[in-house]
Amino acid sequence: MEVNAFAAKKAGEDLEKFNYNLPVIGKEHVDIKVHYCGLCHSDLSMVNNDWGNSKFPLVPGHEIVGEVVALGDEVKGLKKGDKVGLGWFSESCMHCDQCMDGKQHLCSDSEGTIVGRHGGFADHVRGHWSWVTKLPDGIDMSKAGPLFCGGITVFNPIVLSGVQPTDKVGVIGIGGLGHMALKFLKAWGCEVTAFTSNKDKTEALKKMGAHNVVDSTDSKELESIAGSLDFILNTTNVKLDWVAFLTTLAPQGKLHTVGAVLEPMEIPAFSMISGEKSVGGSPLGSIALTRKMLDFCVRHDIYPAVEEFKMEDVNKAIKHLHDGKARFRVVLKA
Amino acid sequence: MEVNAFAAKKAGEDLEKFNYNLPVIGKEHVDIKVHYCGLCHSDLSMVNNDWGNSKFPLVPGHEIVGEVVALGDEVKGLKKGDKVGLGWFSESCMHCDQCMDGKQHLCSDSEGTIVGRHGGFADHVRGHWSWVTKLPDGIDMSKAGPLFCGGITVFNPIVLSGVQPTDKVGVIGIGGLGHMALKFLKAWGCEVTAFTSNKDKTEALKKMGAHNVVDSTDSKELESIAGSLDFILNTTNVKLDWVAFLTTLAPQGKLHTVGAVLEPMEIPAFSMISGEKSVGGSPLGSIALTRKMLDFCVRHDIYPAVEEFKMEDVNKAIKHLHDGKARFRVVLKA
Repeated sequence: MEVNAFAAKKAGEDLEKFNYNLPVIGKEHVDIKVHYCGLCHSDLSMVNNDWGNSKFPLVPGHEIVGEVVALGDEVKGLKKGDKVGLGWFSESCMHCDQCMDGKQHLCSDSEGTIVGRHGGFADHVRGHWSWVTKLPDGIDMSKAGPLFCGGITVFNPIVLSGVQPTDKVGVIGIGGLGHMALKFLKAWGCEVTAFTSNKDKTEALKKMGAHNVVDSTDSKELESIAGSLDFILNTTNVKLDWVAFLTTLAPQGKLHTVGAVLEPMEIPAFSMISGEKSVGGSPLGSIALTRKMLDFCVRHDIYPAVEEFKMEDVNKAIKHLHDGKARFRVVLKA
Repeated sequence: MEVNAFAAKKAGEDLEKFNYNLPVIGKEHVDIKVHYCGLCHSDLSMVNNDWGNSKFPLVPGHEIVGEVVALGDEVKGLKKGDKVGLGWFSESCMHCDQCMDGKQHLCSDSEGTIVGRHGGFADHVRGHWSWVTKLPDGIDMSKAGPLFCGGITVFNPIVLSGVQPTDKVGVIGIGGLGHMALKFLKAWGCEVTAFTSNKDKTEALKKMGAHNVVDSTDSKELESIAGSLDFILNTTNVKLDWVAFLTTLAPQGKLHTVGAVLEPMEIPAFSMISGEKSVGGSPLGSIALTRKMLDFCVRHDIYPAVEEFKMEDVNKAIKHLHDGKARFRVVLKA
């Protein structure tokens, strides 16, 4: 099948129209007609080859929702016409210890949708049946794409860290990921604090689910909530005063980062020991948890705030995100 | 009651004979006749005023086993003649959220046995009934003292981190704390790796419960076990190559420190994110867990390896520990 896509021909360049041929479909693979595809910071990182693993021409796009148009003979649980999503992962080995244990996102042989293969800024995209996730009835497809990368990235830590509805929680950085975290944690039943460097956003953040808004750059404000939070999710990738945030944690509190802060986090042992605190991180989430998240989103009407661009305006959309103007997540309509 | 004790009169000085009077016993307090008292690195730190909270004269000793000789009217669950132990904590508030939740060791108003009051290098010592823990039948009192500080310090992380008998685990630093951790983890059913900088100890470590001994200073040896461990307990307080140890962890593995490393631990976010790993710490353990640990020790015949000194030879014992000669824990006999 010929695919009409948008690709970066070289690192850092604008995307251009690009056609490529998908080979005959494999037994376990699924072809998806793309309806919408989210634009994620990771797409920019891959276009810029920030991680050194990009292959060009590169078709970005890994927050895909669409419709099954072709399937291999051994695909399980899907049929033509099913509405589906595909996120960062397009395949896992399905037989290693992690895959067998329901942690396919930790499989060391998993394949990234835009790593060494072509993604969803296109009319079609292919994936292994395991990661092609059926959408629940009633979901709003125009906003569901970002759930498959940004959404599951912030949903997974809530489950992984055992956050309870009785917990007091915080979210650092209210952007594409953080604003979804606020919505999830509000629906989780928690008391939610948004940490932001821009208090002008206070009303908007409260609408998204924050009960409290704290200036993350004001050490006095941080001190005023010392010992109160059970869980903090960091969605930024900048160096912060980690000790100050650890101090805001209650005993046995957890600081969890999904932001890949480049500088090592400096964590004094004593700031963990005295209150049995911990620091952790995670990438995305498992297949089963992705399904649960989608059900949760439909039940609670949780979607990212999206700005829609036409697929052919992809370069305009990229500039919008790059310039820090996205409020809060960009979606391309095919 | 007049107490015959050994005290440091000033920071860093040798201990001297020291008598003091205990006031009339409080309603909730218990007086213990000391039979044995362990000598812990924290005693040295307090004598040297390393943490700035020492009051002199200072009677060290917080790994106490002995016998109840007097009780206040409102003491619960104890009677004269009971064999008991008393560790780092001598009292907690018993009504804050942490105390009410069974985490009395995280009470912010708890009292340390040798912090601003006198400890167990003496013929008698006093504590609140809650922390005066009845010894199970059949326990060897001559070796049980160190369980009340070093023992619970390494036992608590095993429970807190949810270590399972099917796990592969590692212990960094095989000294007073680490050697007890090896014994606990062996009895827990785990595959146990001892990390040591001195491979000459290999046979001794295997006798204590290590299945494998790895040179913690040899990066190739560490690389050879990459991705294999579910839990690592650090008992040292020196700066180590934390990234190398995180690399030895399996997905969802936990690095836990009870060693109060002074330099902040440098933890790259990505070394946690990709495998859902975490870094944590803890101090001692709760009252209920201390009781469970004691039962576990009796059932599995787990004791520290102790060297016994007479109480009057306390300065000799301190020098022995200070010189790094303790194999592995020092106990003073009253």
